[in-house]
Amino acid sequence: MSFESLWADESAIGRSPDTGGYTRGGWSPTEREATHWFLDQCAARGLTVESDGIGNLIAWWEPREDPGGPSGGLEAPLPGVVTGSHLDSVIDGGAFDGPLGVVSALAAVDQLRAEGFEPGVPIGIGAFVEEEGARFGMPCLGSRIAAGVLSAEKALQLKDRAGVGLGEALEKAGLDPAAVGPSPLLRRMGTFIELHVEQGRGLTAPVGVASSIWPHGRFRFTFGGEANHAGTTLMEDRHDPMLTYAMTALAANKQARLAGARATFGRLSVEPNGTNAVPSQVTAWLDARAADTATLESLLAAITKQATERAERDGTTLEVTPESVSPIVDFPAGLRDRLVNVLDGAPVLPTGAGHDAGVFSDAGIPTAMLFVRNPTGVSHSPAEYAELDDCLAGVDALAAVLKDLAK
Amino acid sequence: MSFESLWADESAIGRSPDTGGYTRGGWSPTEREATHWFLDQCAARGLTVESDGIGNLIAWWEPREDPGGPSGGLEAPLPGVVTGSHLDSVIDGGAFDGPLGVVSALAAVDQLRAEGFEPGVPIGIGAFVEEEGARFGMPCLGSRIAAGVLSAEKALQLKDRAGVGLGEALEKAGLDPAAVGPSPLLRRMGTFIELHVEQGRGLTAPVGVASSIWPHGRFRFTFGGEANHAGTTLMEDRHDPMLTYAMTALAANKQARLAGARATFGRLSVEPNGTNAVPSQVTAWLDARAADTATLESLLAAITKQATERAERDGTTLEVTPESVSPIVDFPAGLRDRLVNVLDGAPVLPTGAGHDAGVFSDAGIPTAMLFVRNPTGVSHSPAEYAELDDCLAGVDALAAVLKDLAK
Repeated sequence: MSFESLWADESAIGRSPDTGGYTRGGWSPTEREATHWFLDQCAARGLTVESDGIGNLIAWWEPREDPGGPSGGLEAPLPGVVTGSHLDSVIDGGAFDGPLGVVSALAAVDQLRAEGFEPGVPIGIGAFVEEEGARFGMPCLGSRIAAGVLSAEKALQLKDRAGVGLGEALEKAGLDPAAVGPSPLLRRMGTFIELHVEQGRGLTAPVGVASSIWPHGRFRFTFGGEANHAGTTLMEDRHDPMLTYAMTALAANKQARLAGARATFGRLSVEPNGTNAVPSQVTAWLDARAADTATLESLLAAITKQATERAERDGTTLEVTPESVSPIVDFPAGLRDRLVNVLDGAPVLPTGAGHDAGVFSDAGIPTAMLFVRNPTGVSHSPAEYAELDDCLAGVDALAAVLKDLAK
Repeated sequence: MSFESLWADESAIGRSPDTGGYTRGGWSPTEREATHWFLDQCAARGLTVESDGIGNLIAWWEPREDPGGPSGGLEAPLPGVVTGSHLDSVIDGGAFDGPLGVVSALAAVDQLRAEGFEPGVPIGIGAFVEEEGARFGMPCLGSRIAAGVLSAEKALQLKDRAGVGLGEALEKAGLDPAAVGPSPLLRRMGTFIELHVEQGRGLTAPVGVASSIWPHGRFRFTFGGEANHAGTTLMEDRHDPMLTYAMTALAANKQARLAGARATFGRLSVEPNGTNAVPSQVTAWLDARAADTATLESLLAAITKQATERAERDGTTLEVTPESVSPIVDFPAGLRDRLVNVLDGAPVLPTGAGHDAGVFSDAGIPTAMLFVRNPTGVSHSPAEYAELDDCLAGVDALAAVLKDLAK
C-alpha cells in the first residue's frame, strides 16, 4: 500500500473539524481508533502482533523458517530490528508527531516486500502508548514502564485531568492493570530505529540522523498567596501569586535565551480562577531543556532564584517540584554512523524533543533515530507539517536502513 | 430567633470541609439549599414570599390591615422598605459576603417583633440571585434582569463553564425561562437597604454607611500566538502569548498602584494548556476599579497600551473586550444622611465592590447600604471574617433603620 493512502487513512482519525488538530491522549477514543487501524493494517499484512500490559504493540515480520535448520524451526524467537513510534498526540497537536513513524514503518515494509526482500532477522513495527504524556502528565509513559524505569505501582497512581486513574483507563481499553510492568516485548528488541518528524528548523536536508536528545525537565511551580476581593483589597495589602508567576514566566524566557536553552510555561492552573478574586494559588509547569545537564541545572537555578526573590517581595510562597527529569541521551555512535553511511552522508543533529527512542537507548537497546524535515519548525500544533516528498524520502531511508540491519 | 443560631444554621450550608469556603453559584445545589433554608425561615415567620422569573425573592412583613380603612383592606399592596442581600458566593468564597445581609434582615425582623414594633409600611426581606456572577460571568445577574438593564434574550445566551445555559439551569431549579424579564417585585421596592460585610479595611467602627460604589469594569484580554513544541522551537522563533500576558499582568498591577486604583487578573484560560506546548492562546480577565470613571478609563488605556507594545515585540495579537462596565453609583445623600443620623453619626465610606444595591440605585429606587466591619479586609476567600459583636451591632443598626423608615 502506498505511503500516501496509508497516510490519508491514518491522519483522518480524530482530526478536529474546528482546529485541524488531534487530541489523542493515551487510551482515549481517538487514540484507540488509531490503534485499531494499526492492528487492522498489521493483520492485513499477516504480521504477528505482540502486546504488553500497558498496551505497547510490536507487529512482527518473521524471517521465512528454514525447515532444514538446526532445530527444525523450533528455536526461541530471534531478536529483531524494531522500528515505529507512537499514535497518541498532545492536546490539539499535529498529524505527524508520532504517526509519521508508524505509517512510514508500514510503508517501508510494503516497499521491502514489493522488492522481494527477505529479512534475515525479524523486523518489528512498534506503536508505544502515551508517548506525549498529554493525558497522564508523564512523557514516554509506555516505554518507561516497558523498560522498568517507571514502576507499575507509581504509574497506577497517576490520574488524568478528569480524575480518571491509569488503571481505570486501561480497563476501559480492555487491558488488565495487573499486567502492567517491565515488558517482555523488549527482549526481542535487538535494535530500535524511530523515524520522526523533526520538530525544529534544524534539518535542511529531507532526512537526517539523530546524535542526541537534550536533557529535559518538567518542574511544577506552586505559587501560594491569599485569595481576596479584587475590588476592595488595596494593591499594597495583597499577596497575589499571579504576580509572582508572571515575573517567573518572563524570567524563564530571558534565562533560556541567555543560556541558548528552552524554557516554557505552557500549562497553568489558577485557584479559585474567578474574575473578581485575587487568586489563592497559581500552579504552573515549567518545561526546560538544554544541550547538557549543567546548563539545564543552572537554568533552573536562575529561574528559581528570580522567582523566590519576587515571592519575597509579593509575600507569596513558592514550591518547585521536579515531575520528571531526563538526562542527555547520546545515541550510540556506531549505529548512528552506520545509518549515515547507508544514507550517503545524511546530516546528523541533536533534538530538544523527548522520544521513546531515548528511553530504549537508556535501557541498553542499540537505538537510532531518523528525522524528516520540518519546513516551518512548527510542532505540537495543528500547523505541524512536512512535505510529501520529504515523507517519501523518509520511507526510502527507513527501508534502506531496515534492509541493511535485517539482512 | 437569635442572630447566632440563624448564622450557625445558614453558614453550615455547603461549607467545604477542605477549605472552609463556599462555592454557591447561582441555582447550584448548595445555593438552592441556602435558598430553601431562607424560604423555610420566611414560612416560619408567616412572611408572604413573592418571586420573579429569574428567582429573586422578597418575603413581606405586611402592616396589620386596618379594617376601618378607606378601602376596607382591598387597596393595592403598598410599596415597602426592602432589605436583604444574596445567598450565592464566588468560587471558594467566604461565609459573610451576601448571607450576612439576609441573616441580619431575618434577625432584625425578629428583634422588631420582639419589641412589639408594628410597621406602618411593609418590610421586605430580599434574596437576589447570582449576585457574584461566579457561575454565568455576569455580576448582579438577578438584579440586572429585574431592573431591565439586562435583557432576557441576552441573559439566556449565557452559559456556565460547563456549557450549561442559563435557561437549562433555571429549569433544573424549577423556574420557567420564559418568565425571565423585568421584575414586578421592583414595583413594591419603595426603598432598598443592603447590609453587607465591608470588603476592605476601610471601616474602623463596627458599622458604617456607604457613600458610593466605585466604577467597575471586567475586560476580557485575548492574547493570540502560535502553538509550538516547547523543546524544539527556538526561543527566538516563538510567538508565545503567555509572555505577553505575563507582562500585562505585571503592568496592570503597577498602573493600578500608580492610580490608587485596583486591577486584578484572577481568571485565566490557556490553550492547549499542555506542559510541552507553547500556548496558542491565553485568555485573561481584567477586573479594574477606580474612584471615578476618568481614572478607570485611563487605567485601562495604560494597561492596554503596555500590552499592545509587548504583543508587537512577541509577535502575538491582543483583543480587549469589555464584558461589563458599571459607572460610579452615588447613593442618594438624603437617605444616606438619614441613616447616619439614626446611627448617631456612623462613618461614611465608598466601596470598590459591586452590589445589587448599585443596580437598584441606578434603577431609581432610593437605596442605601450598611457595612459591617471586616477586621482583616479579606473577602472572596474562606478567610473572610467579621466579629460576632460587629455582626450584632449590624443587626441593631439595621433594626433601627427599618424602624425609622417603616414607621
